[in-house]
Amino acid sequence: MRPGLFVLVVGPSGAGKDTLLDGARAHAACAQRFHFARRVITRPAGSPGEDHDSQSEADFAQREEQGGFLITWRAHGLSYGLPSALRDVLDAGGHVLANGSRAVVAELARRVPHLVVVEVTAASEVLAQRIAGRGRESREQVLQRLARKADALPSTVHTLRVYNDGTPAEGVDAFVELLLGLCAPLTLRPLALLTQEPLCVVHADDFVEGGMLEVAAVHAGRCERLRVPVVVGTDGQWVPPGHIGLDARSAERLGAPAGAALLARSVAPARERDLLRKKIGGEALTEGEYRRLMREVVDGRFERTELAAFLVSATQSLSDGEVQSLARARAALAQTLSWDEPMVVDKHAIGGVPGSRITLIVVPIVAAFGLAMPKTSSRAITSAAGTADAMETLARVDLTAAEVAACVRSARACIAWNGRLNHSVLDDVMNAITRPLGLDSARWAVASILSKKKAAGATHVVVDLPCGPRTKLPTEAAAHELAHLFERTGRALGLEVRALVTDGSRPIGRGVGPALEVRDVLAILGGRADAAQDLRAKAALFASHILAWHPEVGSLAEGHKVAQDLLDSGAALQAFEAIIDAQGRRAEPVLPGSWTHEVLASHDGRVEAMDGWAIAGLARAAGAPTDLGAGVDLLCEVGQRVARDQPILRIHASSPQGRDAGQRAAEQMALANPAILIGSEEECLAP
Amino acid sequence: MRPGLFVLVVGPSGAGKDTLLDGARAHAACAQRFHFARRVITRPAGSPGEDHDSQSEADFAQREEQGGFLITWRAHGLSYGLPSALRDVLDAGGHVLANGSRAVVAELARRVPHLVVVEVTAASEVLAQRIAGRGRESREQVLQRLARKADALPSTVHTLRVYNDGTPAEGVDAFVELLLGLCAPLTLRPLALLTQEPLCVVHADDFVEGGMLEVAAVHAGRCERLRVPVVVGTDGQWVPPGHIGLDARSAERLGAPAGAALLARSVAPARERDLLRKKIGGEALTEGEYRRLMREVVDGRFERTELAAFLVSATQSLSDGEVQSLARARAALAQTLSWDEPMVVDKHAIGGVPGSRITLIVVPIVAAFGLAMPKTSSRAITSAAGTADAMETLARVDLTAAEVAACVRSARACIAWNGRLNHSVLDDVMNAITRPLGLDSARWAVASILSKKKAAGATHVVVDLPCGPRTKLPTEAAAHELAHLFERTGRALGLEVRALVTDGSRPIGRGVGPALEVRDVLAILGGRADAAQDLRAKAALFASHILAWHPEVGSLAEGHKVAQDLLDSGAALQAFEAIIDAQGRRAEPVLPGSWTHEVLASHDGRVEAMDGWAIAGLARAAGAPTDLGAGVDLLCEVGQRVARDQPILRIHASSPQGRDAGQRAAEQMALANPAILIGSEEECLAP
Repeated sequence: MRPGLFVLVVGPSGAGKDTLLDGARAHAACAQRFHFARRVITRPAGSPGEDHDSQSEADFAQREEQGGFLITWRAHGLSYGLPSALRDVLDAGGHVLANGSRAVVAELARRVPHLVVVEVTAASEVLAQRIAGRGRESREQVLQRLARKADALPSTVHTLRVYNDGTPAEGVDAFVELLLGLCAPLTLRPLALLTQEPLCVVHADDFVEGGMLEVAAVHAGRCERLRVPVVVGTDGQWVPPGHIGLDARSAERLGAPAGAALLARSVAPARERDLLRKKIGGEALTEGEYRRLMREVVDGRFERTELAAFLVSATQSLSDGEVQSLARARAALAQTLSWDEPMVVDKHAIGGVPGSRITLIVVPIVAAFGLAMPKTSSRAITSAAGTADAMETLARVDLTAAEVAACVRSARACIAWNGRLNHSVLDDVMNAITRPLGLDSARWAVASILSKKKAAGATHVVVDLPCGPRTKLPTEAAAHELAHLFERTGRALGLEVRALVTDGSRPIGRGVGPALEVRDVLAILGGRADAAQDLRAKAALFASHILAWHPEVGSLAEGHKVAQDLLDSGAALQAFEAIIDAQGRRAEPVLPGSWTHEVLASHDGRVEAMDGWAIAGLARAAGAPTDLGAGVDLLCEVGQRVARDQPILRIHASSPQGRDAGQRAAEQMALANPAILIGSEEECLAP
Repeated sequence: MRPGLFVLVVGPSGAGKDTLLDGARAHAACAQRFHFARRVITRPAGSPGEDHDSQSEADFAQREEQGGFLITWRAHGLSYGLPSALRDVLDAGGHVLANGSRAVVAELARRVPHLVVVEVTAASEVLAQRIAGRGRESREQVLQRLARKADALPSTVHTLRVYNDGTPAEGVDAFVELLLGLCAPLTLRPLALLTQEPLCVVHADDFVEGGMLEVAAVHAGRCERLRVPVVVGTDGQWVPPGHIGLDARSAERLGAPAGAALLARSVAPARERDLLRKKIGGEALTEGEYRRLMREVVDGRFERTELAAFLVSATQSLSDGEVQSLARARAALAQTLSWDEPMVVDKHAIGGVPGSRITLIVVPIVAAFGLAMPKTSSRAITSAAGTADAMETLARVDLTAAEVAACVRSARACIAWNGRLNHSVLDDVMNAITRPLGLDSARWAVASILSKKKAAGATHVVVDLPCGPRTKLPTEAAAHELAHLFERTGRALGLEVRALVTDGSRPIGRGVGPALEVRDVLAILGGRADAAQDLRAKAALFASHILAWHPEVGSLAEGHKVAQDLLDSGAALQAFEAIIDAQGRRAEPVLPGSWTHEVLASHDGRVEAMDGWAIAGLARAAGAPTDLGAGVDLLCEVGQRVARDQPILRIHASSPQGRDAGQRAAEQMALANPAILIGSEEECLAP
């Protein structure tokens, strides 16, 4: 028999842990399923608060000495302990439910076989109100407690949340629903099945209810989670009782080996379908309504078709006020990071322009000045390179939250991959719907992006809005409207946001592809005379706006001067090297691929336009971004005169196959949609 | 080894069978996978048309005599034969592809182990144009051929369709895609798995491609089909090569036993995503665009989330012109029935009102007059009784298409369950989305309903639009607008449609529940003096509108007179009895349940309103519609004065448990939302 679950309930003062625990104790099914741990506290037995076993400090210390506690901690001048006898309950397959402290979570995880932390929480205004009404503690103590809320729980522990800012009965309902949804640990059996969607199989004996399980694997210093539709095996042929079968890809994503214990939970059905219905009907939702709705969305309680219907409505009607409400609601739901810094800077680009790798210049300038900038970026999805792909030519980018924090401590900044750090179920569904269907999700994205920046602890954010015929923002008017929405929504979140509309009509810099873009960046940081001036100027502009926020700089003009100095002095380059070292320098940087093919001008003429998307397409054909060395090097500029047979771009790849594929793509493209358009009047005059 | 598939390609002249077969023959993968049957025809070898083996009529007859043919048929004065040697190809596991005639389908199904019919078709205007351009046949011959198109293929055969009204290359692409998607017959292995959504498992060796299989089982005189997402087993543990595992519910729905051969086909990915995108973006689609889009929707090529997004847009913006285009596009896609009748009548109600079982009166009146009315109706979904539930208290309602036709031959009409007869993937998804989310799908429903009526061969349709605060049409304006849309859309389909806005503010008749409603119906048909006059009047109104269409009646006033006569003379009752006999009379009719509970007036007063939904809720609580005898009998009318403790409604059930459940529901309801509202001024005056 597998040992049972240890469920530790934590939460700040005012969150109502005691109320929820009392409610669960009074609930027959909960009382039957869980052993409620009784705490030992060095507080007189008659004092208000929870029912506990009272011991003197001396007796407590002696009991601790004799191994009488599973774990102990101190808080508010008292000692707390959970008796070691609870281990016997677990060993017999029983589940223990205990009121605890977030301070002991990491240690407790080492002492019990299967720890589940239930974090009881509520909106800060609700917490403050409840604590104030209590009068047991001084104002200082209250503030101290609330500050402690920011301590992140260890990412290695399986944590679930209960929001308790409604009535006590609502809170108890939600808590009981969560507790009864917890399954006993199940033994992982990877199935030799390839599925389109994740799938798990449990035996009918282990089935709790509902169509969806959240499964968590605590393994190799991580806790990975998945939501998976459940298939119930009615005989033991597929999966015997006590086991959970998981399709091959899901098992791989969880990263746990066959035989590992998985912690599973039935996802309860949605309660807030009326709110979804209201929005689909075209009505606006309030912040409180978004908060209730988004909690259930994030918990995976809705069908994908329902989310699709909701998101279509959200792309059609989302007022400025709703964008702000949604941003605040989502920020409140996210796991929040806090930095011990007066200013934490971030940057975002909507869409982006091929070659415009300014993040790799802005971050070093800002870090060189001394501001904290824990930047996380995406990999390429449809483009030739994302910032994370480019950075990966030099350093590790797959950082954990703890590693991001360590980088900021040692180098003031990082440039990490965001894939692991702030994943959103909702954005996954949104992308799966909006991308193939080409829906305009820009206003939705404002709430999504800024709520993530807020949750990541940023205080100041610059946003790059490239505007041009092939970008997500084809008109100046649309771009400026979105810029204002970004700035207003930032204010609603308590963020300083500066959104700049930039030229998205042509590539920026010369290289398109991870290593080629980094080559351009290093030329600028290294102060080389032949560096791409458009890329340098754009990076300096964004850095200036950031620096201008700092009281010692104070103005954009001064910010510009400081940014130039940091570039010219080599301080930015030095900061970049420090960031690379902090993240983990690659033994050898990835350089532009040495298999090249030059595309020649078909006729004399003036370069009239460059199609950034066609150029990115060539780079992808040559292997970018998977081949970090692949890409396209632009050998001419818009407005420049070129002669027939003059090389106008060079395709790079790390293999002859990539080079050949790039060459074929270039030949096909020349017929249909040339990446570089050379003026045709000269062509007409030619013989 | 299982024998291979026999794929018979049929289709009307002008559909382009030869072009598609030639295209497939030229396609390397098709040529490798299929044995192309060469036909023997009694036509000189040099004549135009397909390459064939030519034989004299005498040689042909002799060869037929000697068993040299798998099957033969005559057409256009010639004999056609497929050589019997094709059986050896099948026995060796090979797949045969042959150009055939729909006339031999039923017989061929008995002679080959696994028949798949591919019906090549095109819009009628395209067919006519192609045939006219050919000049090989006289105009009369062309018309004869086109008329033959209406012959339905036997429902016992697995039939697939290829639409060939684009370019020849597009047609060949679609045909080749379908052929290559066909799997070899797979052995059914029901899996002991309960899933939320259907699921099948095939071995990696049998996997064609794509995420969805359409599986068909030909068994017990039926061909049942399902679309199921595929899971691929990478070892033989779950499902060995050559087998197909199917979740328990899907296997049950298919109705085939373990070990049966299933015909499976990979559903190809969508090609028309741009059209979906266009509609989601709020643009209108043309009829041609709807035709292309709906073909793929019906084929199951889109994700459910994509359909959800599309349907939300469709509920938000669907112009009158689009409703008509959509109706025509959907009618063209459906399997069409044709009746050898100048008038075929149908009736539909949107939403419906508790107790308003007029169909059971209208159909007999119309049949007594002599018009054909093959009526199919739904069972209750959220109400206490559907027309099919009510009819089921007297007769079988689960009729096949052939049984519907036989009823019309012998009794001029039927009242059958529509569940098996006109099922729509699209409407399933629409209902799954709109019902829980409360979306207004009325305009969409106009296209859906009328296209089904058209495909079922109706020429004249009456539509009942109950209007009232708790119906789908809360305002008169909305109801009249929808009525006009019904009538205009009918015209676009070549249907006569009359849509009547009726009073949906209160129940009609006295009984609510299958057997109680039938009791009301029989009282009217039997000419009993105490029959419910509101129900009789409403039924007579709809019958009058139908009869008025007939040239011998000609006016609504005359129609009304004829309807009354048919009721008064007992002719309608006689027609009803004939319909019951034709469908299959129940040995004993189901009567209203004998376990009853009477609800008494709480005070003296006037009945001000009846809440039809609350009354239906009581009937459901008592067991309706599963218990056909359960329901509520109304013992008072709106406007009537009642005395305290006077019975105002009676709950019926077929068991004491049902009666008790109904009683409990009535007691709870009285506190919150009384089903029958008795004026409160008297209550206030009471001591």
